[in-house]
Amino acid sequence: MKQIAMLLYPGFTPLDAIGPYHALSQFPGYEFSFVALNAGPISDGSATIMQAQKSISDVSAVDILVVPGGLPAITMARSGDPLIDWIAKVHPTTEWTISVCTGALMLGAAGVLKGVPATTHWYSHSELANYGAIPTDKRVVESGKIITAAGVSAGIDMSLVLAERIFGQAFAEKMQLDMEYDPKPPFNAGHPRSAPAEVHAELRELFDSVLKKD
Amino acid sequence: MKQIAMLLYPGFTPLDAIGPYHALSQFPGYEFSFVALNAGPISDGSATIMQAQKSISDVSAVDILVVPGGLPAITMARSGDPLIDWIAKVHPTTEWTISVCTGALMLGAAGVLKGVPATTHWYSHSELANYGAIPTDKRVVESGKIITAAGVSAGIDMSLVLAERIFGQAFAEKMQLDMEYDPKPPFNAGHPRSAPAEVHAELRELFDSVLKKD
Repeated sequence: MKQIAMLLYPGFTPLDAIGPYHALSQFPGYEFSFVALNAGPISDGSATIMQAQKSISDVSAVDILVVPGGLPAITMARSGDPLIDWIAKVHPTTEWTISVCTGALMLGAAGVLKGVPATTHWYSHSELANYGAIPTDKRVVESGKIITAAGVSAGIDMSLVLAERIFGQAFAEKMQLDMEYDPKPPFNAGHPRSAPAEVHAELRELFDSVLKKD
Repeated sequence: MKQIAMLLYPGFTPLDAIGPYHALSQFPGYEFSFVALNAGPISDGSATIMQAQKSISDVSAVDILVVPGGLPAITMARSGDPLIDWIAKVHPTTEWTISVCTGALMLGAAGVLKGVPATTHWYSHSELANYGAIPTDKRVVESGKIITAAGVSAGIDMSLVLAERIFGQAFAEKMQLDMEYDPKPPFNAGHPRSAPAEVHAELRELFDSVLKKD
């Protein structure tokens, strides 16, 4: 079996992980595992506690690496972390290296995105450039074997793009129909370009209060 | 604090739960818990193992009840289960009773949907009528305090509808922008009305092989 490893860490955003999990965990011929610094329970800091099947020390090669986002992805990317070193170690031999949301900053800190068109959560686009990436305003950005998805829910779109690349369009369509991904957002506020200015300003201020560098 | 309880059971579909979790776990003034027959680890049958904070025997009243779907939701609804009895017990005093995907069949079996317009995963619409519900072809169906969402990913849309009902449109828009829910499915296959006929037929046959009653 080929191996899919999705990296978890305390404070990860559950929807970044579970959005793509739905399709990826059904990929024929692939075994899906959650991987973390240490195997065992990993909390998002709220009510979600998931189990990592494997420690990074037990995993030296993977076929598909997926790095979901979360606030700590930004700070780990800034300050360095054993997970960043692990990404740098396994990336050269992956078939696909993938991020969702601010997971892209961890790929960046691992040196994976130098000169590579990539995306991340809308709030972190400018920071992505600090790692040599070329911030690209698309929901899913493909660049060779590297695929980056925009914020949180974009991991679902990414999973269908990846499903098509590996198994063809009919398989990807089957995954989309299985999860009834026929989105009808009740508001038009999913991106700063469409959200009301005051909603955007309020959320940006909240993120600034937590994340802005001195 | 008001209480949100999301019901988990072995074989639940993680995206049914974690799609709405993203917004619901940020509702101000509400405490979010995962609830199961017994507190502790609950597996989806694949790589996801989540922790339930509470046993149903410890929870006699909740403000928001959310029942995600999964294949076992269909069979538990057919055969009866202590979880169904618990839903019937707590529903009368909820502020909101909510399902995602085939979780609607569990609400139905608990007697909650008699004469109520409701939706579920596209595969299970006809079965929903067996419980007295009025199957309704919309992504999110509101009927008083009962909200039902269509298959799997529709829980995300539902969470924004609920956020608007409780906290108003600006809050719901902030949640949508936070999760960058600006969907761009790469294919037009999220519902039987749009999916290629052969993709629909193949998936229906797969579900039939697992679920069709004698």
